[in-house]
Amino acid sequence: MLTLTPVSGDRRRGWRFAVVLVLLGLAGNACAEDGYALWMRYVLVDQGVAHDYRARFGELVAPDATATQRAARDEVERGLSGLLGNAPVRRPAPEGKRALILGTPRSSPLIAPLRGELEALGQEGYLLRETQVGGRTLMLVAAREDIGVLYGVFHLLRLLQTGMSLDALEVRESPAVARRVLNHWDNLDGYVERGYAGGSLWDWHTLPDWQDPRYVDYARANASVGINGTVLNNVNAQALSLSREYLRKAAALADVFRPYGLRVYLSARFSAPIELGGLATADPLDPGVQRWWRDKADEIYALIPDFGGFLVKANSEGQPGPQDYGRSHAEGANLLADALAPHDGVVMWRAFVYAHDVPEDRAKQAYNEFVGLDGAFRRNVLLQVKNGPIDFQPREPFHPLFGAMPRTPLMMEFQITKEYLGFATHLVYLGPLYEEVLRADTRARGPGSTVARVVDGSLDGHALTGMAGVANIGDDRTWSGSHFDSANWYAFGRLAWNPMQSSRDIAADWVAMTFSPAQEVVRPVVDMMMASRETAVDYMTPLGLHHVMARGHHYGPGPWVDGGPRADWTSVYYHRADRNGIGFDRTASGSDAVSQYAAVVARGFNDVERVPEPLLLWFHHVRWDRRLRSGRPLWDELVHRYTRGVRNVEAMQATWQRLEGRVDAPRHRQVAAFLRIQRNEAQWWRDASVAYFQSLNGLALPAGEQPPPHPLAYYQALQFPFAPGDGR
Amino acid sequence: MLTLTPVSGDRRRGWRFAVVLVLLGLAGNACAEDGYALWMRYVLVDQGVAHDYRARFGELVAPDATATQRAARDEVERGLSGLLGNAPVRRPAPEGKRALILGTPRSSPLIAPLRGELEALGQEGYLLRETQVGGRTLMLVAAREDIGVLYGVFHLLRLLQTGMSLDALEVRESPAVARRVLNHWDNLDGYVERGYAGGSLWDWHTLPDWQDPRYVDYARANASVGINGTVLNNVNAQALSLSREYLRKAAALADVFRPYGLRVYLSARFSAPIELGGLATADPLDPGVQRWWRDKADEIYALIPDFGGFLVKANSEGQPGPQDYGRSHAEGANLLADALAPHDGVVMWRAFVYAHDVPEDRAKQAYNEFVGLDGAFRRNVLLQVKNGPIDFQPREPFHPLFGAMPRTPLMMEFQITKEYLGFATHLVYLGPLYEEVLRADTRARGPGSTVARVVDGSLDGHALTGMAGVANIGDDRTWSGSHFDSANWYAFGRLAWNPMQSSRDIAADWVAMTFSPAQEVVRPVVDMMMASRETAVDYMTPLGLHHVMARGHHYGPGPWVDGGPRADWTSVYYHRADRNGIGFDRTASGSDAVSQYAAVVARGFNDVERVPEPLLLWFHHVRWDRRLRSGRPLWDELVHRYTRGVRNVEAMQATWQRLEGRVDAPRHRQVAAFLRIQRNEAQWWRDASVAYFQSLNGLALPAGEQPPPHPLAYYQALQFPFAPGDGR
Repeated sequence: MLTLTPVSGDRRRGWRFAVVLVLLGLAGNACAEDGYALWMRYVLVDQGVAHDYRARFGELVAPDATATQRAARDEVERGLSGLLGNAPVRRPAPEGKRALILGTPRSSPLIAPLRGELEALGQEGYLLRETQVGGRTLMLVAAREDIGVLYGVFHLLRLLQTGMSLDALEVRESPAVARRVLNHWDNLDGYVERGYAGGSLWDWHTLPDWQDPRYVDYARANASVGINGTVLNNVNAQALSLSREYLRKAAALADVFRPYGLRVYLSARFSAPIELGGLATADPLDPGVQRWWRDKADEIYALIPDFGGFLVKANSEGQPGPQDYGRSHAEGANLLADALAPHDGVVMWRAFVYAHDVPEDRAKQAYNEFVGLDGAFRRNVLLQVKNGPIDFQPREPFHPLFGAMPRTPLMMEFQITKEYLGFATHLVYLGPLYEEVLRADTRARGPGSTVARVVDGSLDGHALTGMAGVANIGDDRTWSGSHFDSANWYAFGRLAWNPMQSSRDIAADWVAMTFSPAQEVVRPVVDMMMASRETAVDYMTPLGLHHVMARGHHYGPGPWVDGGPRADWTSVYYHRADRNGIGFDRTASGSDAVSQYAAVVARGFNDVERVPEPLLLWFHHVRWDRRLRSGRPLWDELVHRYTRGVRNVEAMQATWQRLEGRVDAPRHRQVAAFLRIQRNEAQWWRDASVAYFQSLNGLALPAGEQPPPHPLAYYQALQFPFAPGDGR
Repeated sequence: MLTLTPVSGDRRRGWRFAVVLVLLGLAGNACAEDGYALWMRYVLVDQGVAHDYRARFGELVAPDATATQRAARDEVERGLSGLLGNAPVRRPAPEGKRALILGTPRSSPLIAPLRGELEALGQEGYLLRETQVGGRTLMLVAAREDIGVLYGVFHLLRLLQTGMSLDALEVRESPAVARRVLNHWDNLDGYVERGYAGGSLWDWHTLPDWQDPRYVDYARANASVGINGTVLNNVNAQALSLSREYLRKAAALADVFRPYGLRVYLSARFSAPIELGGLATADPLDPGVQRWWRDKADEIYALIPDFGGFLVKANSEGQPGPQDYGRSHAEGANLLADALAPHDGVVMWRAFVYAHDVPEDRAKQAYNEFVGLDGAFRRNVLLQVKNGPIDFQPREPFHPLFGAMPRTPLMMEFQITKEYLGFATHLVYLGPLYEEVLRADTRARGPGSTVARVVDGSLDGHALTGMAGVANIGDDRTWSGSHFDSANWYAFGRLAWNPMQSSRDIAADWVAMTFSPAQEVVRPVVDMMMASRETAVDYMTPLGLHHVMARGHHYGPGPWVDGGPRADWTSVYYHRADRNGIGFDRTASGSDAVSQYAAVVARGFNDVERVPEPLLLWFHHVRWDRRLRSGRPLWDELVHRYTRGVRNVEAMQATWQRLEGRVDAPRHRQVAAFLRIQRNEAQWWRDASVAYFQSLNGLALPAGEQPPPHPLAYYQALQFPFAPGDGR
């Protein structure tokens, strides 16, 4: 920050030295680049574009009658001050030749003529346009509602942050998905299940009296990518979250978030009528239970008028649910939906369920449980489905429910926190994972029936649509536990707004805003990010392997995990490796999970010759000596991919090393340290996996492959009782 | 920060506007005053003193051959850059008329002549002196060792931060206490027992590979007040802390801390030889156990050559210990002491023990357990004694062990974290509490046998001395959970260096550095701080009441707490209130705890007419209608004090309100919010306590006193299952 470019002109070079002196003088109090600012750093733009931008943004005409209007105005002032070195002058109306105009038809006479056009962009859409009015060149950030203006401001700032030309600017945006929601798996004691970014951001103890300024910055970050909802508490819910005391705390957060278009939701424990209400049952058909939920909904909406609704994990992994009373998931969801309906609230009912008894194939459970309930849910119920049929693995096929329940809005549930992807220390950009799932073609209504079109409602004509991301946010200074993990929060938001965006483009925006818009930075970092997910798949779960992490905390490899309370929580259940081969036979002659997909998809998955190789061992049990497309036998290919994963982490290290001096030292240092951790853990994954599978098949390592440095027993003996994020 | 004063001269007014513009331009990235900088903010000094300071510090001559030398040089440059607006010029030798000289006789030829004088200041002492040498005026920061120079640098910077004159400066300092140690009650999963400042600062999961920059700032903060040791893990210890894996993590922290004179210690679980070593016993007389600890000590010192030693909680509240094998505390402590002795390590053995069976008076237990062991400990054992005989209450008499074990070095254990004093949201400055204890006269060797003289070794001639503070530090951005709680960390450090300092003077320094050196700020804030502890005593535990907090988490009032696993974990055990009176009779006709004090002290405590009124109910059971010194009956006086406590919090609010504009907005806002919480909780304490005691004595409230707004049952029903910091 100490190498400054003068604000403008040549005449002022004289005071440059003095400015540096003063800034040095402030250094004791200066801000390190510690990641807190996320992608909203607003540092001075490159001289090449600064003049052009400054010419446009000398004057600002912006309403400030509502909290959202003030948020938009403040953000544009903060952004332009940082990016251009000075804030625009506020005017009630344009005076000079050029001005920036914010507003809606109601709030701005300059925007009013666009009423019809803005109407078409919907409640959250916006328009950016440079236009001539009465001899002036005006940059309009216009929307039907205030929130659209705020979204538009963030879009405009992004264009500046990434150094885009604004000539003849014309942008129209509206979100493809209605509910773009973070799921925080935060417990009331501040512990975050599967959290790798410190404790919960919510300081329940000091709420509602103290509202940490972080809550505002959290809302700004979400608004900047269009996220419009947040579930504050863990799906493994505590009933106390619905007590009056905690509702008052949640209401304080809702008050902070409201100007940023961010609505509060809560996870509801199905048995809350018993635990909080003192009822003898939580049976959804019991009138007393129904009354309790109606009263509770009334109570919530009195405190939080724009409350979003409930997220529910029921009859899954020990949580209570309607099946405890012999009722269906639909009866359970509808109970809550009826209570919320008078207030326009929604229920997000999770499809992540599996039987109490260990099934023959857990991958089939959710489909079997829910597909018959299509059409049985109330209109304000979304069924929230994880991207794949198991559990957020580095790679899964898309969930077979997508496309299979046309009468039910299916909400996507992605995991942003990297439970199975190296926690916060592994650099794994999830954009390509999300993109792969969203672009997968279910073929439910013929070609082009992508998961994205199921989720955005266009395939089956649903207006109620949603996408959820299990948040990776905690009280760590970086928000997400590492500098690169904020890219996953960012990408989730951008894809929830527009599921057909390119994850590469999103990464490029994020890098430019987060590190530097210089192409010498953007290009290599984006390349590194784009390759990172496949790299993690290589060193963890190549060729369709899945759920081979260590037990419980999922930290590191555990392909030998066996025994314990249920078989489908073990690794051997999933990889089924033995002396002869490896992989889960889900073909028609196996568990027949393939039949849950549309016929044409199922045929592809079912055929060992046609199945995509990255999913080979997901769907097939394959002999170790079977030749794969590379010409290598399966065993050699597996080892090759493990090793390639390690090498590719080393390549990331080399890339990052070359960026020293181009990225500020504090962040460069942390990323480099985390990459070292990732390198060592990738090697650990490779070595432990090779040692284990070799102990089963007795095969020699391919030529040139190093044997693991330790015997298998060494890897099996490693214990990490305090690995972060474990459920408890 | 945006109102700037030009660096110097008049000519430069011209660029002032431009500088403001540029700073505005950086605002997007500017640092809020969020408390992270603690008392080391180093903001520009007042114009009145700036010129004088700048004249002195244009040149810096400082060695940089060792890490500690570099730390001292970097700190002085950082400090002067911030305080004066520019850094001094580094020189190998002075060139101009005035210079700042750092060094030791070994590192600096200019300091070498002071060798004898510096020798007398000891290993950590230092000298600040302005002196004339060869026509030059030199400001010397001189010490025998590098660490003394670093301490001297912080002292010098403090003088500038508080606006002191440096004319003819002559300061000689050496610490009165050798081991000035923080005790972190941090668990390996990141939870901090009795922590109200977020999670643990130690990110065990990413150590040793990643060393968070916070660790450096933590070390700087400690060095700035002379704290030279830190126990990283909870006294309720996990054996795993002593495993090789965790020792490597601790060693990484030790490497970060070493340049700042901060040594690492660990809490040792007495049964570690069983849990880690696989032995069948942890009996201190077992040769295998002795060997295990010797080997473990060797292993530790190979990784951490300056390891400080072990802190041990044994046979207390369920922890294992020597009594499990029929051995004494001395035999247990000596086991570890013998293992550490070859490496000059020490054992800090805690005296906080009480019997498995509920005793007739728990206040007597530690004394009874330990006093007979005087002389039985190895020379490298410190007995670590809490300030009072119960447990860190808002007020206790000094612990009777002080003065009673002349042949054993007694280490003071203060609690900095406010387990019983309102957590992080109550503004309670603990300096007066510490001062009250340290200045208490044990009379062990006649008048003047203060606790401070026991602790600093001067009373009984001990060279091994220590003071421990249970840290209030976590990963909260403010470090201590609130802006004012860092004052308690600060005061602990200053008093550990010099136990006879005035807590008011310390507060004045802290306020000047932390908020502003302007007298309009320092005076009212110091007054507020100095009154705050008595205010908390008033609304929580007036007149010697104690241990009447809610069960377990100790959040809020619980005078009705009864039952449960043991009587001495209840409130009724301690207050003994009934229809007729209140208080614990510890006189000769009661539990006779008074007899544990020196005779002259005991006589004073034993006599209801002479006992200090603030300790009345600690030592006496008193009828409700007894007249106190105010002329009021006990009941009226009790209610009066509760109410006065609430009023005094309101007075703090009013004081703080008047400082709006004089204290930066972000910190002013948080403190104001926390004071609101404190006000409401003080009222809750008052109302619940009055309601409860009134339910016992049936007396009317004194005239003018408001009845509690709720019935007693309301207060008793309040539940806070997720109050922070609870042991678990």
